[in-house]
Amino acid sequence: MSSQGVQGYNPRTGEAFGEPVPSTSDSQVDAVVSAAARAFPAWAAATDRAAVLTRLADALDAEAELLISTADTETALGVPRLTTELKRTTNQLRLFAEVITEGSYREATIDSPDPDIIPPRPDLRRILQPLGVVAVFSASNFPFAFSVAGGDTASALASGCPVVVKAHSAHPNTSRETARVVSSVLPEGVFGIVYGTQAGRTLVQHPQVKAVGFTGSTGGGRALFDLAQGRPEPIPFYGELGSVNPVVVLPSAAASRSAELATGFAQSLTMGVGQFCTNPGLLFAPESLVDELAKAVGGAGGGAMLTERMRDSYESGVDSLATHSAVRLVATGSGDGGGWSVAPRLHQVSIEDFAADVEKLTEECFGPSGIVVTYTDPAQLLEVLRELEGSLTATVHADPDEHELAGEVLNEIRRFAGRLVFNAWPTGVAVSWAMHHGGPWPATTAPLHTSVGATGIRRWLAPVTYQSWPDALLPPELQDANPLDIPRRHDGTLITP
Amino acid sequence: MSSQGVQGYNPRTGEAFGEPVPSTSDSQVDAVVSAAARAFPAWAAATDRAAVLTRLADALDAEAELLISTADTETALGVPRLTTELKRTTNQLRLFAEVITEGSYREATIDSPDPDIIPPRPDLRRILQPLGVVAVFSASNFPFAFSVAGGDTASALASGCPVVVKAHSAHPNTSRETARVVSSVLPEGVFGIVYGTQAGRTLVQHPQVKAVGFTGSTGGGRALFDLAQGRPEPIPFYGELGSVNPVVVLPSAAASRSAELATGFAQSLTMGVGQFCTNPGLLFAPESLVDELAKAVGGAGGGAMLTERMRDSYESGVDSLATHSAVRLVATGSGDGGGWSVAPRLHQVSIEDFAADVEKLTEECFGPSGIVVTYTDPAQLLEVLRELEGSLTATVHADPDEHELAGEVLNEIRRFAGRLVFNAWPTGVAVSWAMHHGGPWPATTAPLHTSVGATGIRRWLAPVTYQSWPDALLPPELQDANPLDIPRRHDGTLITP
Repeated sequence: MSSQGVQGYNPRTGEAFGEPVPSTSDSQVDAVVSAAARAFPAWAAATDRAAVLTRLADALDAEAELLISTADTETALGVPRLTTELKRTTNQLRLFAEVITEGSYREATIDSPDPDIIPPRPDLRRILQPLGVVAVFSASNFPFAFSVAGGDTASALASGCPVVVKAHSAHPNTSRETARVVSSVLPEGVFGIVYGTQAGRTLVQHPQVKAVGFTGSTGGGRALFDLAQGRPEPIPFYGELGSVNPVVVLPSAAASRSAELATGFAQSLTMGVGQFCTNPGLLFAPESLVDELAKAVGGAGGGAMLTERMRDSYESGVDSLATHSAVRLVATGSGDGGGWSVAPRLHQVSIEDFAADVEKLTEECFGPSGIVVTYTDPAQLLEVLRELEGSLTATVHADPDEHELAGEVLNEIRRFAGRLVFNAWPTGVAVSWAMHHGGPWPATTAPLHTSVGATGIRRWLAPVTYQSWPDALLPPELQDANPLDIPRRHDGTLITP
Repeated sequence: MSSQGVQGYNPRTGEAFGEPVPSTSDSQVDAVVSAAARAFPAWAAATDRAAVLTRLADALDAEAELLISTADTETALGVPRLTTELKRTTNQLRLFAEVITEGSYREATIDSPDPDIIPPRPDLRRILQPLGVVAVFSASNFPFAFSVAGGDTASALASGCPVVVKAHSAHPNTSRETARVVSSVLPEGVFGIVYGTQAGRTLVQHPQVKAVGFTGSTGGGRALFDLAQGRPEPIPFYGELGSVNPVVVLPSAAASRSAELATGFAQSLTMGVGQFCTNPGLLFAPESLVDELAKAVGGAGGGAMLTERMRDSYESGVDSLATHSAVRLVATGSGDGGGWSVAPRLHQVSIEDFAADVEKLTEECFGPSGIVVTYTDPAQLLEVLRELEGSLTATVHADPDEHELAGEVLNEIRRFAGRLVFNAWPTGVAVSWAMHHGGPWPATTAPLHTSVGATGIRRWLAPVTYQSWPDALLPPELQDANPLDIPRRHDGTLITP
């Protein structure tokens, strides 16, 4: 980012791409947020939000070619991956259209009056309503799915909140093109975008901003979280931060399918040049698996990382690991040589040495770098799992004869991980009703919430209870006749249409 | 509180009551929290939590006589009110037993695999699970319902979290007696209690404490909120803080039922010596209502406040109001003279003068003090309502011929209040499924959550998603056969038993 604006680059060459996008001044941020605040009441009350989200999905699909080629130049993530990611992004908008049409997200709850209980109960009707203007900090590594029109934006718009996006500096041109499409579909003011680090800080502190969604590093997330909590009026801050995503391979699985596991691990580790928040950076496995793992990672290709800073940070991370007295470098894959390219790496450490330096060895090294922690005694494995901090995912590979041990591992990992994977790999996050993409600190700043899946909408909604209001003044969701035909809870019993 | 411990007092006389309860040292706090952390896995997995909560309710009811007489001596709230409050507290425990038996609180959600969508979807099963040890800061003004065995404790225990209570210094003997009953029913370690301000600070910062519930002042709550958010691992902090609970009387209602409204207001304002978080401290009304209001408040009795400090703070609050150039004291009720007794007060200010100094005139003055803001133009009323900050409640009194205006007022108040009351008074909070007791800052630190009602349990639960696990390793709530027969969402559709 220069003083004139946010400059995009081509990671494959390291050269500038396009003109800088101007940084947004503080007074411009104020104008964008104020417009969003003015648009809030009408958007919150709009009955066609599902249709608007569907139109937005269609409009993005219609511009797929331009969006994908821009993003490919600016991120080097490749056309096939970006094609899938854009489809996932538009399907995500369509899922939220379904979520709001289904209507459960409002949690409509009606209690009849009861003068005889203690304390006496009047007519009470509870519903969730949108919070107000939401700030969304988009991610470097998903230029579509976690960016301008990504999950935070889709869920916030669906809830009835206007959105102001802070574009990520790694893909200003992709952000601008996406924003153009979004603005062409949404009502005036409901969507805005700002550019530059200072604009982001101003956004989080703006009195009219009522919640923040963030995807990024632990350091950057913590700084903005502290700003949000330090405001005169603190606001909810939903940050998805770093995660090492431990994988445990149990002994029988390691013995019976070593080649398949090694290939699967190397693929998951190096997918998207390791730039996934669910990248499996830590693998607990028997020593016997190390040769196969080294062969697979050694045969894997790297590629250009998203930014020069990420490339530098990856190189210094793997260098620092390599100099750790207890860590051995066991494989180096190939880079493709150009621009900000890096090569995959695999390191090994014994579980005893790992246990002696858990904090250092569980620092996320963003990119295609993994550590295999070799164990022999499952009891020691369970002991060490107890030391791990919050992660987005944790994975177990187990054969049918070791389900009892798998259950014991499960008891440990469910304490610290948001998604528990069995005999599969953590990369790839389905967008659905049952998905949870979150976890305890430092995986996120808000363990109760998810940034992917239907329940992500709940981040932007707060309850309100109507006591003894005339039916005609109630929101339709709470009126006696249930005109929207949504699921409701009535005197404690859930009633589906 | 003395250096040896927390001394209880009799507010009616100002004299010490009982021996000081020893303050809890930092190492004792650590021991209590560690015991709770050890008890967590078994309590989280316990299948008899509903039965335990019911037994606890019965045990408290069985000790009602001692508990109520201790609390009456220590709080001066009176036996009738305390009898109702204890009953409400035990009914609250019974409600949470129902909530966990009904099972929706787990939000069990199952998505079938679908390899054809983008991205492909594996078998995903989402459920809410308890966070870990919960710290509960009990309130001064509800020695039962918001204290040791109150709503925070009941909901956290129901969720599967152990609880460590920080007793309020206004009623150490009541706290100790209640804790004795709770400890006699709950499994070892699941419940603990600490005493003293320093113990509270240590508790919030203890690494094994995973969430905090708090009821109290904005100043005290903000200080603890800042501690909780400033931890290396920030944790959810659910604080219920100050609230002025505005009431709006529309013109026709004021004209047609002035006497009834004045009596109702005075009762609501002076109930429990005004020491309710839902106390209506601000009343918007036509000038014509002021004489009746003054007569009613002037005829109302005060009483002893809970602590000497609250009495002092009330006196300095009303003194400061009386010296405000735009404010007129229109009524003073009677005190009962003894101990920490105070008299109700009613002040008047025009809506123009109110609009010129909203911040000062909406400071909560805890106790039986109210301000009537007189208006003539409903448009100006709507304008001023736009300036108000978060409150637990907001109330409208309207006659049938002014429902349209009531709807316009509703549009303003639902932005800032958690419960919207029509033609009734805000004091008295029913404990039920549809209750919401919360609101935007400064009413609470967490606008998405409630400290009263069935959904209060959600504060202590975080989601986890199981991907592709064998049925036998899943929690029963997620197994194919649904052995607990609870409501679940299956491929997006809510299915009730």
